[in-house]
Amino acid sequence: MLADGRISLDDAESMICGLPIIELGHTRIDADRLRRTGIGEVVYGAGKTPEQIVDIAGALLSSGQRFLATRLSDSAAAALKKAFPEIEIDSFAGIARMGKISPTTKTKIAIVSAGTSDMRVAEEARLCAEFFGSRVETFYDCGVAGLSRLLSSIDKIREARVVIVVAGMEGALASVVAGLLKAPVIAVPTSVGYGANFGGLSALLSMINSCANGVSVVNIDNGFGAAYNAHLINSA
Amino acid sequence: MLADGRISLDDAESMICGLPIIELGHTRIDADRLRRTGIGEVVYGAGKTPEQIVDIAGALLSSGQRFLATRLSDSAAAALKKAFPEIEIDSFAGIARMGKISPTTKTKIAIVSAGTSDMRVAEEARLCAEFFGSRVETFYDCGVAGLSRLLSSIDKIREARVVIVVAGMEGALASVVAGLLKAPVIAVPTSVGYGANFGGLSALLSMINSCANGVSVVNIDNGFGAAYNAHLINSA
Amino acid sequence: MLADGRISLDDAESMICGLPIIELGHTRIDADRLRRTGIGEVVYGAGKTPEQIVDIAGALLSSGQRFLATRLSDSAAAALKKAFPEIEIDSFAGIARMGKISPTTKTKIAIVSAGTSDMRVAEEARLCAEFFGSRVETFYDCGVAGLSRLLSSIDKIREARVVIVVAGMEGALASVVAGLLKAPVIAVPTSVGYGANFGGLSALLSMINSCANGVSVVNIDNGFGAAYNAHLINSA
Amino acid sequence: MLADGRISLDDAESMICGLPIIELGHTRIDADRLRRTGIGEVVYGAGKTPEQIVDIAGALLSSGQRFLATRLSDSAAAALKKAFPEIEIDSFAGIARMGKISPTTKTKIAIVSAGTSDMRVAEEARLCAEFFGSRVETFYDCGVAGLSRLLSSIDKIREARVVIVVAGMEGALASVVAGLLKAPVIAVPTSVGYGANFGGLSALLSMINSCANGVSVVNIDNGFGAAYNAHLINSA
Amino acid sequence: MLADGRISLDDAESMICGLPIIELGHTRIDADRLRRTGIGEVVYGAGKTPEQIVDIAGALLSSGQRFLATRLSDSAAAALKKAFPEIEIDSFAGIARMGKISPTTKTKIAIVSAGTSDMRVAEEARLCAEFFGSRVETFYDCGVAGLSRLLSSIDKIREARVVIVVAGMEGALASVVAGLLKAPVIAVPTSVGYGANFGGLSALLSMINSCANGVSVVNIDNGFGAAYNAHLINSA
Amino acid sequence: MLADGRISLDDAESMICGLPIIELGHTRIDADRLRRTGIGEVVYGAGKTPEQIVDIAGALLSSGQRFLATRLSDSAAAALKKAFPEIEIDSFAGIARMGKISPTTKTKIAIVSAGTSDMRVAEEARLCAEFFGSRVETFYDCGVAGLSRLLSSIDKIREARVVIVVAGMEGALASVVAGLLKAPVIAVPTSVGYGANFGGLSALLSMINSCANGVSVVNIDNGFGAAYNAHLINSA
Amino acid sequence: MLADGRISLDDAESMICGLPIIELGHTRIDADRLRRTGIGEVVYGAGKTPEQIVDIAGALLSSGQRFLATRLSDSAAAALKKAFPEIEIDSFAGIARMGKISPTTKTKIAIVSAGTSDMRVAEEARLCAEFFGSRVETFYDCGVAGLSRLLSSIDKIREARVVIVVAGMEGALASVVAGLLKAPVIAVPTSVGYGANFGGLSALLSMINSCANGVSVVNIDNGFGAAYNAHLINSA
Amino acid sequence: MLADGRISLDDAESMICGLPIIELGHTRIDADRLRRTGIGEVVYGAGKTPEQIVDIAGALLSSGQRFLATRLSDSAAAALKKAFPEIEIDSFAGIARMGKISPTTKTKIAIVSAGTSDMRVAEEARLCAEFFGSRVETFYDCGVAGLSRLLSSIDKIREARVVIVVAGMEGALASVVAGLLKAPVIAVPTSVGYGANFGGLSALLSMINSCANGVSVVNIDNGFGAAYNAHLINSA
Repeated sequence: MLADGRISLDDAESMICGLPIIELGHTRIDADRLRRTGIGEVVYGAGKTPEQIVDIAGALLSSGQRFLATRLSDSAAAALKKAFPEIEIDSFAGIARMGKISPTTKTKIAIVSAGTSDMRVAEEARLCAEFFGSRVETFYDCGVAGLSRLLSSIDKIREARVVIVVAGMEGALASVVAGLLKAPVIAVPTSVGYGANFGGLSALLSMINSCANGVSVVNIDNGFGAAYNAHLINSA
Repeated sequence: MLADGRISLDDAESMICGLPIIELGHTRIDADRLRRTGIGEVVYGAGKTPEQIVDIAGALLSSGQRFLATRLSDSAAAALKKAFPEIEIDSFAGIARMGKISPTTKTKIAIVSAGTSDMRVAEEARLCAEFFGSRVETFYDCGVAGLSRLLSSIDKIREARVVIVVAGMEGALASVVAGLLKAPVIAVPTSVGYGANFGGLSALLSMINSCANGVSVVNIDNGFGAAYNAHLINSA
Repeated sequence: MLADGRISLDDAESMICGLPIIELGHTRIDADRLRRTGIGEVVYGAGKTPEQIVDIAGALLSSGQRFLATRLSDSAAAALKKAFPEIEIDSFAGIARMGKISPTTKTKIAIVSAGTSDMRVAEEARLCAEFFGSRVETFYDCGVAGLSRLLSSIDKIREARVVIVVAGMEGALASVVAGLLKAPVIAVPTSVGYGANFGGLSALLSMINSCANGVSVVNIDNGFGAAYNAHLINSA
Repeated sequence: MLADGRISLDDAESMICGLPIIELGHTRIDADRLRRTGIGEVVYGAGKTPEQIVDIAGALLSSGQRFLATRLSDSAAAALKKAFPEIEIDSFAGIARMGKISPTTKTKIAIVSAGTSDMRVAEEARLCAEFFGSRVETFYDCGVAGLSRLLSSIDKIREARVVIVVAGMEGALASVVAGLLKAPVIAVPTSVGYGANFGGLSALLSMINSCANGVSVVNIDNGFGAAYNAHLINSA
Repeated sequence: MLADGRISLDDAESMICGLPIIELGHTRIDADRLRRTGIGEVVYGAGKTPEQIVDIAGALLSSGQRFLATRLSDSAAAALKKAFPEIEIDSFAGIARMGKISPTTKTKIAIVSAGTSDMRVAEEARLCAEFFGSRVETFYDCGVAGLSRLLSSIDKIREARVVIVVAGMEGALASVVAGLLKAPVIAVPTSVGYGANFGGLSALLSMINSCANGVSVVNIDNGFGAAYNAHLINSA
Repeated sequence: MLADGRISLDDAESMICGLPIIELGHTRIDADRLRRTGIGEVVYGAGKTPEQIVDIAGALLSSGQRFLATRLSDSAAAALKKAFPEIEIDSFAGIARMGKISPTTKTKIAIVSAGTSDMRVAEEARLCAEFFGSRVETFYDCGVAGLSRLLSSIDKIREARVVIVVAGMEGALASVVAGLLKAPVIAVPTSVGYGANFGGLSALLSMINSCANGVSVVNIDNGFGAAYNAHLINSA
Repeated sequence: MLADGRISLDDAESMICGLPIIELGHTRIDADRLRRTGIGEVVYGAGKTPEQIVDIAGALLSSGQRFLATRLSDSAAAALKKAFPEIEIDSFAGIARMGKISPTTKTKIAIVSAGTSDMRVAEEARLCAEFFGSRVETFYDCGVAGLSRLLSSIDKIREARVVIVVAGMEGALASVVAGLLKAPVIAVPTSVGYGANFGGLSALLSMINSCANGVSVVNIDNGFGAAYNAHLINSA
Repeated sequence: MLADGRISLDDAESMICGLPIIELGHTRIDADRLRRTGIGEVVYGAGKTPEQIVDIAGALLSSGQRFLATRLSDSAAAALKKAFPEIEIDSFAGIARMGKISPTTKTKIAIVSAGTSDMRVAEEARLCAEFFGSRVETFYDCGVAGLSRLLSSIDKIREARVVIVVAGMEGALASVVAGLLKAPVIAVPTSVGYGANFGGLSALLSMINSCANGVSVVNIDNGFGAAYNAHLINSA
């Protein structure tokens, strides 16, 4: 059946035989991911030791790939800085980036956030989207309690190919933004809030139930995931 | 201590001895409630048989009180109509009213709803608030997906002493309205929606977590409760 | 400030004054939505009476717009067919469509579903996406329990600009598909399953927590919403 | 349409163009809120750095507004005290207030709390309500386990225009108080309790499902929100 | 070790060998339960066919035991009536009883319920408790929204050895009653209510978190279980 | 890499190319599953039309496989009986079986259930396990409220290679059985119960948290799944 | 009506006028509780400062009452010890007791716990029950995974008037014990466990859904509450 | 009945009389468990003091049994090391083992994990399974986002008698693995992830709802429990 040409032999090989995988003992780096999905492996820092993260960074960089890590603890960030002095660290957003970062897209991603406390997640999204190659413009602190903050920027937001909305509490911003746009909205609920917020559940449910069309949702506080989706849309 | 005059003897009597209570076997009508809370007993129709509801109506009416019932089944409504031909029935909202209804307030309550499907709950609120004596103005189908529907009415809504917002799905309307007003907002989450709406939970959590100030919340689909609260505010 | 040209006067008018809105009493049709978001109002049939739906259809059609309704009961479908004999009804998916439907995009949307029972939701997505103007190709019954069903189609799926994944139970299909693609995945959890499925919650949580990048999620059983998002991405 | 006078041009400007907004980089202060809602911006301290809070305080105070912040950490309180030595700090309730505070209302708000452990939330409510301009009287430790504690104060509570009830555990106090009053009750569930209290969920559900009329609910531990609502009612 | 006399040989036999058990194919009747726990097997009618219930009734009655069944459907009740014409059926409460019923206790159980809609569960409790041999006095429709209904009966309630409180919605009645008594309170949350009641969850959490001492809780709508516990306490 | 022999070419073909799949339009039958997993496709009847089920049965039977369907509605069962008169239908358990059924294992599976109402799920397990080829022995109505019913059978239960425990309500039976055995226990929570049972959630959580070792859990009411797992263990 | 003698004037006074209440500013001690409910106020230590607890202790002791506090932090315990050197502190259980403790009951309470980790809660129950005046016998580490540990003690447990069962994880012990007894069982779910235990929810739901009769439930980890209920039953 | 030989006298003795139990005050060691279930008592370290754990170790070892403890804190591990210098400690997995460890099975258990962060739980499973006597082979970091990592190892995984799958986030790996095997899969959801992961709930629900047959599930992070089940299957 392979002879049918329905899939290429190369594809079959990598699909079945799992090459190229870089074995680190604790981690098996999917070095084929860049080719397969267009974006290389990104390291999720939470739950990994500084040593493991430095190991992975070394393996990726030495194989010629750029490096991006999210959710870094301070100690992991310090270990990376020590091992790779030229690495760029953003402590506020918990991000490390290494390798050339320059926009490859003409269109842009707009990132709209509701409140000051949502900024860490919004910045995670911005730093990741830029790393992937998207142009990004940010519109922070535009919560619906003061609608004019959003409406005064809406024309600029409308220029984007795709919009990321970051909001905690009741997450209403996603619905309001989506009702004003032709672009798709990637909504990121945040855990900002308290009480019946239940760690971001209220914003998540709100966004999933949006009465406005054009909203799809990623995990709570998942700025990286929103950036990833937005870049896939923006870079076509 | 009673002699201290800290509370009146009459009050003590009714508080302790429970008079006047009208005993119907299945129900003990709190006939003192009108004096104590300013609004008489309202019959919650769900879970009561048509016979019980007719009984209660008879007792209240014969004691000189007006009559209001909510959540009536069709059979309960029919039984009331048969027993009291002059009663006013609203089948859509499941409401029966009997007794003179005329506004006693100068200021008004605005009822703002998000979608066509929220109208049953909004109408329950309107019919109850009018029964209590409030003037009411309604603004239906103003969901945030089309913000202009709300903004074009906002000046009229601002004239109200208190605003009821009725919304299902993600319930964002409550936050947006509250951000534009000086009046308090009573938010009614509805069970309108599906999937991760979980019977109104998404709207309830959304409203409880509103980023806008001035929002308080009643139970899911509780148009009556919103009307009750709004009238207490409107009639001071 | 209007003179600054930061927003156009027309935009200001429609944004503030809410024109053009078609008032039907029960419904305020947001007739501006086509211009503002690129896609006209779609009627959500659940919770509306057949009469209301026929009313709305009449108003939209007479204002020159095409017509799409979802979640139609049999009686609403029949009422539409009677009022507009040339309307196209899909009873299985609960969809009515009226007006010319022809693809306006070069790229296509792939719809991949996990099991036979997920087909109703997948068909809702297909019928809506086609109405919006997207080319669509479907790949049904590709659940991960028999991975070969998916892998044998993966090359064709890779040709799509965006992929909709429809799955109930544990919703694992979304992660597996996203791991094999460069295109964004819109995941639709379905309520298919039983027991600890909790009406689709298991698939929803699974998709929101996907370990694969490039997945964003819409509401449970929301084929329409997935089609809407996918078309926005596909039609850029 | 603007010419129709349906909304004023000024309103249109501030609504659309978003003026006056004070841009601080991390925060966009909605300086118009005082005019629009009657109460200026209140700073929610949780999730903001001490530097950000001092920045915002400076901006608000230098624009002639008074200043109120809630949920302050000890370090944020210290930073405020250092920057503005004359500021009033309440460490127990996590509140900072600056600017003249004197009652502007004739009627009063009663704050009734259930137990000693609910006092922090009740004090947050008191300090905020006074800041807004309401007269306040407090009735603490009146839980229903010892009903006499409540009943002995009920005549004084009845003098209030609106009543805030603060209770954790099963939150029964809200229902009991509302059953004895003509005034509306703003219920604040607290996270006080343990086990199946689930961080205040039990009290929240209890209050939302109150069998007594006249109860509306704000978020768990949200003393500020209750004060805001109560003041809107009290100050009409 | 058996020789040690730490347990009797008879006990050992019945504990290990499971005698006497009456085998019906679908059901293994624990005929020893009367001896072991003081109360014989009670048939839970839900989920059993009328034929199975008649079978079990026959087996119990022919072995000389009395018969009690709860949660009977109308068809199961009819089948029992046909098979055992002298059986006593209470359709409202879904109960069948057969065998002599006379009080064996001097002290009594008080059953206090909150609203008319809670009466079915309260009657289930009454009919079961009487069957077990307890004297019972009922106090219905004493919800806390009208506290005087409860307070006027409190002296009579205090005469009981144990009190069953039946309440839905927010279930506050349990706390209020327990705060006024020396007797233990068995609280029965009911599913009466709607919206955020979540099928009785609100009342259950409320009662489990009661701020008053002396409350323990049985399952939602479990009138039988409350009667069982109360009789164990009352009959010592 | 294929040449490395790490996987066979046949395997590669069927894994990648997806052969043999039988395409029915609505369903893609994974005809390779028997070879790959040792047990052929079983049809889950819920959510499929009678016509679809008859189609699938025809395809499987005509390809020489036996046929097993679960969760059949009465109409689906009737359609199967009409199309394949010799098919064996168990209406109580909602099962259809066709093809030779004879034990292929020496060891046996024990199925222990807690109450009469759990029998439908237990029978689903029995009918499926027998179809797969396992010997089965059943021990019904052994709930822990009458421990002797279990203890009197424990020696026979100990003879089994693997034990399925079916229980609703609090599901305690799984822990008690597992504490007495050397065999693994597959626990099936059932939705039997009411109130805070939440559709089987209580039994599911109970079994997942079992203090006894050797318990693993399948979905609520999933008798089929338990049988599948048990047969895999029993047939090694 | 007071003249009717339906309630005594004394009772009316204390019920309405709330005497005697000891006002401490932060706390209003319900000094009448001993007379009304048979057990004086017990101080719940969590959420109170050491100073507040010492204050309350002083007030209760100086009014001639004994003193019991639960959930004491180490610092609160130290403050009590310093203020009242003769006080008895149990650090493990977080309990302080002062005043004569001697059994006033002939019958006893049995406390049965499942595992070593449940011991803290069981000891809280024991220390409280003894303070109230009950004889207590403990049976620890009797979990159902090793049934013999329970069965070997069952005859002694049967001698108790009431049994407290303390168990975490799946809480099966309550059902097993209740099935073997004539005495009522007060079940205390504990938060012992992990994962899907959800802080004691699994044990709580398990106990509330017990298939055995005679079980009622108190809050998670509420050893004090179980002791209170048990003593009310034991002391009649 | 004992004479009937239905159970052996020895069994009766140990079942009823609970011998041999080693009493340590805080713990009653079920020394009979090895004989009854084939595996001796394993000490769950969480919630026990270092002293208690050393006590138990001493008792088990001096009675000739081997020793295994899980979930050890660093201080408990240190205390064990001090008391028993030859003990083997794995700090990463929180495991202590003492006594000879050598494989007693011919067949093996495969442990497949999804990501680097799941490794702690996977190692707990490996260390326990080896202690029980099973051969184990591990396949780490095989998450479905890079399917080739799994597929390249699938032939080796197929050699196992039983497979443990350890995965957090959406837990899709369990379904994918089970769809490729004839062996039963024991799925271990982990708490790895964030946001709507809810401490492992998403993976738990995903695995319980697996569309692939042959999956049964243990508690979140319960590597020990998976090993126990797997060894029971592997060692038959």
